[in-house]
Amino acid sequence: MHKGLIVQKFGGSSVANVERIQNVARRVVSYRKKGYDLVVVVSALGDTTDELIELASKINADPSDREMDMLLSTGEQISVALLAMAIHKLGFEAISFTGAQVGIITDTSHTRARIIKINADKIKEELTKGKIVIVAGFQGVTLNQDITTLGRGGSDLTAVALAKELKASECEIYTDVEGIYTTDPRIEQRAKKLAAVTYDEMLEMASLGAQVMQARSIEVAKKFDVPIHVRSSFSENSGTMIIKEVKRMEDVVVTGVTLNKNEAKITVCDVPDKPGVAAKIFKELSSNGVNVDMIVQNVSHIRQTDISFTVTKAEAQKTLKITRKVARAVNSGEVLEDVDIARISIVGVGMKSHPGVAAHMFEILAKNKINIEMISTSDISISCIIKKKFAETAVKALHSKFNLGG
Amino acid sequence: MHKGLIVQKFGGSSVANVERIQNVARRVVSYRKKGYDLVVVVSALGDTTDELIELASKINADPSDREMDMLLSTGEQISVALLAMAIHKLGFEAISFTGAQVGIITDTSHTRARIIKINADKIKEELTKGKIVIVAGFQGVTLNQDITTLGRGGSDLTAVALAKELKASECEIYTDVEGIYTTDPRIEQRAKKLAAVTYDEMLEMASLGAQVMQARSIEVAKKFDVPIHVRSSFSENSGTMIIKEVKRMEDVVVTGVTLNKNEAKITVCDVPDKPGVAAKIFKELSSNGVNVDMIVQNVSHIRQTDISFTVTKAEAQKTLKITRKVARAVNSGEVLEDVDIARISIVGVGMKSHPGVAAHMFEILAKNKINIEMISTSDISISCIIKKKFAETAVKALHSKFNLGG
Repeated sequence: MHKGLIVQKFGGSSVANVERIQNVARRVVSYRKKGYDLVVVVSALGDTTDELIELASKINADPSDREMDMLLSTGEQISVALLAMAIHKLGFEAISFTGAQVGIITDTSHTRARIIKINADKIKEELTKGKIVIVAGFQGVTLNQDITTLGRGGSDLTAVALAKELKASECEIYTDVEGIYTTDPRIEQRAKKLAAVTYDEMLEMASLGAQVMQARSIEVAKKFDVPIHVRSSFSENSGTMIIKEVKRMEDVVVTGVTLNKNEAKITVCDVPDKPGVAAKIFKELSSNGVNVDMIVQNVSHIRQTDISFTVTKAEAQKTLKITRKVARAVNSGEVLEDVDIARISIVGVGMKSHPGVAAHMFEILAKNKINIEMISTSDISISCIIKKKFAETAVKALHSKFNLGG
Repeated sequence: MHKGLIVQKFGGSSVANVERIQNVARRVVSYRKKGYDLVVVVSALGDTTDELIELASKINADPSDREMDMLLSTGEQISVALLAMAIHKLGFEAISFTGAQVGIITDTSHTRARIIKINADKIKEELTKGKIVIVAGFQGVTLNQDITTLGRGGSDLTAVALAKELKASECEIYTDVEGIYTTDPRIEQRAKKLAAVTYDEMLEMASLGAQVMQARSIEVAKKFDVPIHVRSSFSENSGTMIIKEVKRMEDVVVTGVTLNKNEAKITVCDVPDKPGVAAKIFKELSSNGVNVDMIVQNVSHIRQTDISFTVTKAEAQKTLKITRKVARAVNSGEVLEDVDIARISIVGVGMKSHPGVAAHMFEILAKNKINIEMISTSDISISCIIKKKFAETAVKALHSKFNLGG
């Protein structure tokens, strides 16, 4: 009857209200009945985290990171207690824990802490007693007993790290979508659910705007080869496996098309074309905690050049301020901002062995009269910055021309 | 400049919204500016605890006590983080802690845990650094790291216990009233604020319905002689000191009149008048966790008697069920319930040395044509159960005739 251990993670939308919590409890119990040991990781109810952030902002526009973690970690604590009660109601044994209680030890980088180690003894002890163990996602504790959080989407990381530590046979990530699609089904209804993607593909997709899973958690899963199953908490259908290698037909070059409308483009004009200038700009941004995404430096003309880069819209104002300061210091020209952009990308491990994919992408965009403003490539992805108004057209065109439709 | 340590406790109504949290922060900071070291204990925001209980009840009508503690303890954790942020905003250093983090070690009686010891090293360390230390009230942790709560009003206990452990010069309990009154000012507008009451008087008042402070916290304050100052968080006026001994004019016999409309009277009719029957009833109630308050056994007639007792209305249905079962087993008659009762009490250490106080009380009630259904007395209090509709009349008459008016 004993079938090994599964780690199941339920996101905020899966536990947004009483009915959904009961639904999660029923699903967890159905696995217990099949003979699995279960560790269940839960996020905060629905929009709780956003509501707490909003509340904090009314009190202090620049709250201390330590206190923010103290505040936000309550969201998951509420979820685990309620889920335990819901499972008890179904007549099964369950026990809830905070990150601190199950020894998820992190560094001291509040609001974006990294897991150092997990002392899983307590979980193992309760599993041995036959209990379903419920763990608050997104949170940990420093060696000094300060509560930390793991950053947005951190519950995924909790789940993957626990799956690794407990040698779980699978880590199920329950969400409000059926799995990973060839593109966003809200834009292209012919989008197809993928049976499997590789860690690398998912990493590209995660960082490129497919908001299904947190990128760091996929990195950890890849590092320790933890098989992930992304699936819907509202249906019984199997979702998408994220694994090391996917056997596909030879001709699958592109696995998916992703879209990110959440970036802004910053351009520094007339930068003196000499060594060290770009370094100055990006060092200053980095030391201020700004994450720069794509960077493009145009061809120089008469000892001057333009540098463009993208950041998240949330960091655009801060970035502008810093960049303008540096630009003045290095005798550059204007610093421009463009928020009406979109980043469109194609992803696929098949690209590695297929030349000409980039050219094909540019051609498809050109045929649709879409101008490309910036280009960036990796081993398994190609991204273009285009005007936001063309985003949906571009997604549909690429999805169709790379034969991703169902 | 250094003036010693004060523990300040702010109840839920004092931190019910953003403005009030900011108000608390300003008050705390004003004491810091005067040179005091400060440990601030905070309850959950406004009705948070009730809302969480309501949420839990929708999921499981009989939730596990351990999970209930896990759930409810989040309320105070939210408060301490927000208060720390509000104090930071004013430019002062503050750090928040959960009960677990500051080593408030309790037994394992979830939802009504008792404090075993407090490892106050962490608090002392932060005070030494000059920080205002904010501690989540109402909660502790077992030696096994399970989160516990101390029962309703438990934040008072947290404050008093910390004041004792840290040898604070005073423990201020901030609430939404100006102090302890001779009676409820909402019923009798001539009620007068008392400058001081003894621990014993306050204990009687607390258990008799004056909902200002939790009884257990006063017991602890009495045991360790911790001076308490009950005062309003909405004004600068001094409130009521709760201390060991109060110097009063000799003729002060009664200090206050209290009213409790939250009890129900249960009567077991025709109980066989033989040893052990009453014991059976109350043992069964006690082992089911029912707290019985007043007990009166009427004079026996023909080998039978009636036993009446009171319990909180919340426990009335449970009590009826248990009592009816026992009544059948011991061949008693009907079990009746009356929820239309009120308990009216007079309290005062002066009673000890003044005979005839009870007679005077009965006389006052009689003159107002108020029938007394049950009587119970202690060294410093006399309580009568009367019909609820006479409650306000009784309060006013007693308040006036014992010369308590302002």
